[in-house]
Amino acid sequence: MLLWLRHYRRAMLPGDISAGIVVAMMMIPQGMAYAMVAGLPPVVGIYASIAPPLLYALFGTSSTQSIGPMAIISLMTASTLAPLAAPGSALHGVLAAQLALMSGAVLLACGLLRIGFLANFFSRPVMSGFTIGSAILITWGQLPALLGGALPHVHAPSALLGVGALALLVWARQWMAATLRRLKIPAVAADIGAKLAPMAVVLGSLALVSGLGLDARGVATTGEVGAGLPHLNLATSSAHWQALLQPALLIGFMIFLISMSGAQTLALKRGEKLASNAELLGLGAANIGSALSGGFPVTGSISRSAVNFAAGANTQLASVVTALLLGVALVAPNGWLALLPLPVLAATIIVAVLTLVDLSLLRTAWRYDRADAAALLATAAGVLALGVEAGVVVGVALSMGALIWRASRPHIAVLGRIAGTEHFRNIDRYSAATAPGLMMLRVDAGLFFGNVEAVNERIEEELAAHPDTRHLVLVLSAVNAIDTSALFGLKELNASLRARGVLLHLAEVKGPVMDRLKESDLLQSLSGRLYLSAAMAWDDLVE
Amino acid sequence: MLLWLRHYRRAMLPGDISAGIVVAMMMIPQGMAYAMVAGLPPVVGIYASIAPPLLYALFGTSSTQSIGPMAIISLMTASTLAPLAAPGSALHGVLAAQLALMSGAVLLACGLLRIGFLANFFSRPVMSGFTIGSAILITWGQLPALLGGALPHVHAPSALLGVGALALLVWARQWMAATLRRLKIPAVAADIGAKLAPMAVVLGSLALVSGLGLDARGVATTGEVGAGLPHLNLATSSAHWQALLQPALLIGFMIFLISMSGAQTLALKRGEKLASNAELLGLGAANIGSALSGGFPVTGSISRSAVNFAAGANTQLASVVTALLLGVALVAPNGWLALLPLPVLAATIIVAVLTLVDLSLLRTAWRYDRADAAALLATAAGVLALGVEAGVVVGVALSMGALIWRASRPHIAVLGRIAGTEHFRNIDRYSAATAPGLMMLRVDAGLFFGNVEAVNERIEEELAAHPDTRHLVLVLSAVNAIDTSALFGLKELNASLRARGVLLHLAEVKGPVMDRLKESDLLQSLSGRLYLSAAMAWDDLVE
Repeated sequence: MLLWLRHYRRAMLPGDISAGIVVAMMMIPQGMAYAMVAGLPPVVGIYASIAPPLLYALFGTSSTQSIGPMAIISLMTASTLAPLAAPGSALHGVLAAQLALMSGAVLLACGLLRIGFLANFFSRPVMSGFTIGSAILITWGQLPALLGGALPHVHAPSALLGVGALALLVWARQWMAATLRRLKIPAVAADIGAKLAPMAVVLGSLALVSGLGLDARGVATTGEVGAGLPHLNLATSSAHWQALLQPALLIGFMIFLISMSGAQTLALKRGEKLASNAELLGLGAANIGSALSGGFPVTGSISRSAVNFAAGANTQLASVVTALLLGVALVAPNGWLALLPLPVLAATIIVAVLTLVDLSLLRTAWRYDRADAAALLATAAGVLALGVEAGVVVGVALSMGALIWRASRPHIAVLGRIAGTEHFRNIDRYSAATAPGLMMLRVDAGLFFGNVEAVNERIEEELAAHPDTRHLVLVLSAVNAIDTSALFGLKELNASLRARGVLLHLAEVKGPVMDRLKESDLLQSLSGRLYLSAAMAWDDLVE
Repeated sequence: MLLWLRHYRRAMLPGDISAGIVVAMMMIPQGMAYAMVAGLPPVVGIYASIAPPLLYALFGTSSTQSIGPMAIISLMTASTLAPLAAPGSALHGVLAAQLALMSGAVLLACGLLRIGFLANFFSRPVMSGFTIGSAILITWGQLPALLGGALPHVHAPSALLGVGALALLVWARQWMAATLRRLKIPAVAADIGAKLAPMAVVLGSLALVSGLGLDARGVATTGEVGAGLPHLNLATSSAHWQALLQPALLIGFMIFLISMSGAQTLALKRGEKLASNAELLGLGAANIGSALSGGFPVTGSISRSAVNFAAGANTQLASVVTALLLGVALVAPNGWLALLPLPVLAATIIVAVLTLVDLSLLRTAWRYDRADAAALLATAAGVLALGVEAGVVVGVALSMGALIWRASRPHIAVLGRIAGTEHFRNIDRYSAATAPGLMMLRVDAGLFFGNVEAVNERIEEELAAHPDTRHLVLVLSAVNAIDTSALFGLKELNASLRARGVLLHLAEVKGPVMDRLKESDLLQSLSGRLYLSAAMAWDDLVE
């Protein structure tokens, strides 16, 4: 907790302050836009950008992570609340806070239970498929706001404004940094300048709306933002706990995955070490804080964190600066924000989520591992066809299926003796001799419920191919653990082999494994013997 | 399909016929009792015992599996249908058939997709915990039928009959085989005789009820069973498809797990090989057949299959004989079945499910692996506290958590050279020399999404401990595969190390892994080199 503060050096201050300012400029339009994605008033996006980063700074371990509203989590929030309350209603806001509270509690509990290893749950192709599917859903959902009406109805001034902003933002994303660099602006500054394009476009559109009176001509705007800091909001409805429980689990899970995947990429660049359980605590506290200050579920934003990193953030102090600036924006006169045109906010959302869509992983996977490419496409299709929650479930199922499939195919080698040595090697790879009546197998994985059947099957195959076998030696040199399921599997194998006149021997059992086996009755009932080495087994069993 | 029939020999016939008769005697009371557990009229249990074994015989690969009603699956059926229809109502029957149809379709689809490896999903402790929890729930649910009233109300004649039958059955289970053996009856016959005790008790109670007119004194009986074979029942309600979808997935999953766990135990005794995808097809066909003939979800029964095995069943013909006999029982005059007292049926259920409760696994796990014991108890508690469906989910979550935890801790060895040889070994276990500036790591697992972070973390730890490192060699002799996630992980590692002035080299890459890597751009961007062996890397990199 607050490790970064204890080692704070004065030289870190300039980087942290400038990064904090840059990220705040990015956060204001993004926060308001993502609140809209979640079906909430734009100001809620500002609320959700103040307490969360401050609380994350207390526990989190990533120095550059920018915590706040994020497109996919906002989409999940909207999709969860859609059947429960009308977007924009007071109940909708209360339930959004309640969802953040429950997701935060889930994250906090996971952190206290120290199950951060669950971050290994999703494969990258599945995560990429989930992101692509979500980005398409979000873009689709923003089209009415962008064009000023549900298709095929279009409000021309709104559409002009929206599509114009979109074109400008796409240009800024693709070419602005290069243009700035050609103007002799340093590379880092040019990159950051390009990232501030949304803020510039938003401010420009604001001027346009107020100058031309576009709001009077039917262009929708944010309306009164409301001044003052967020108030502690504890008025949550207890009637909806149950309906929100499963979504809170899924959203908590995705908050963690999204935050970790961004933070890990940046941590790798700096050789910084993240502690996944501390991250869980940080994200849990951030979401509970968001709930209590009238916000909604938040996570680490990959795009904002990258800007924070590039703008020179050295520690979590940069996020503290951002939070303070957003607080100032709320208490300062902000009536001008009321004229912010929604088509332009929609354009910033679309450009931001399209940045998340990275097809390079799909291209690589398609060439490199077709099964991974299929998992990516299946997850994206799942999100599009069944919705974002079901998409998470599809992703989990695919990742787990891959894990089980992999675990159920351990590498098993038939060993032979290299002539004139004490060495035993895989007979498929080395010219090693076997002895009649003796079968030696080495399993290159810990024995556990996921592979015990596969080991049994392989043994039956080898015995069927060598019906003269009288002694089966399992060489356990690569077995670091044997779980209870595998223990019972070995006991049954022992009984089954004994009934068929084959003795089961164990060789090269590791120390910790042997200590455990002594607590069971396997060794007493073993039909064969224990050998310290494969060579000793060979010398004893080959006549 | 029908492999067993092609290799049928005449000598197998006596065993199959006698086993078929014995199992039929066991199936009649069990089928009726389990129909009651599912909230269905007893005759439905007979229906569900005819088509399913015939269809299983077409596809299934276990020679001794007895397919039909089973206690736990009946409990899951009852719990699924409880919120949808009143037990005993016509709708309840239609929905039970529909649930069997949907579960069967799930199983069939899994078989066609060849995902039978999912049988490795549950660890034995989790399965045992699930069984114990379910057995307690079933016993609790049968107490009112056993005692003739909901506690604390007891109907004395019913309770006398029920508890008397229970005592008799417990005695038969514990001591009858021994008694029969003392009477010089051969051991196998004595064991089978003991298994037929429920049928004898049921027939005895029938005589008692009709002799003493107990039904007139308020002892509940089955009532009119209805004659004639089951009719094809296609009238399923389409309104409930959605409500039944998730339960059908869970029930299909448990049908498969329960059937496989019983069949595998018996297959091991005979050295018989089960094909899990064929088992999925057999179970799928059996459940669809059950649905179409007015039944409910069915699976392989561990207790009946064991009797089938012990009574000498050689092939699936034994099950065909059983099915034919049950068909005869339906078309023969069966008015006498109407007087079957429910307290006695409840007693047979309780004794049958208590047979499933095997505490030896808990005892072993408690001594051998406390985490496995905790998983067992948590699953049992989950079933008792949250219900049987939630119990499956708890079990899956615990098993998956264990799998991820295991996958996320690959064994990684720092290698050193054994002086004067070409051999490289783990420096923690051998006295092997390392060289300054050179770090050699061997990962003893395939690289994939589940362990790529762990590998990165370990590398960072080793680099932090040896800041003078200029060359990192990953020795991939034990790496059989690298998935897309790990490929990206390696690319990021390469870039991150390069930025810190450390070159990344790969050694002993296996042929199939190398073929795949050539399809990616990792090798082009690799900062270091590829070496055929660890020794070659050493010779090249150590000055």
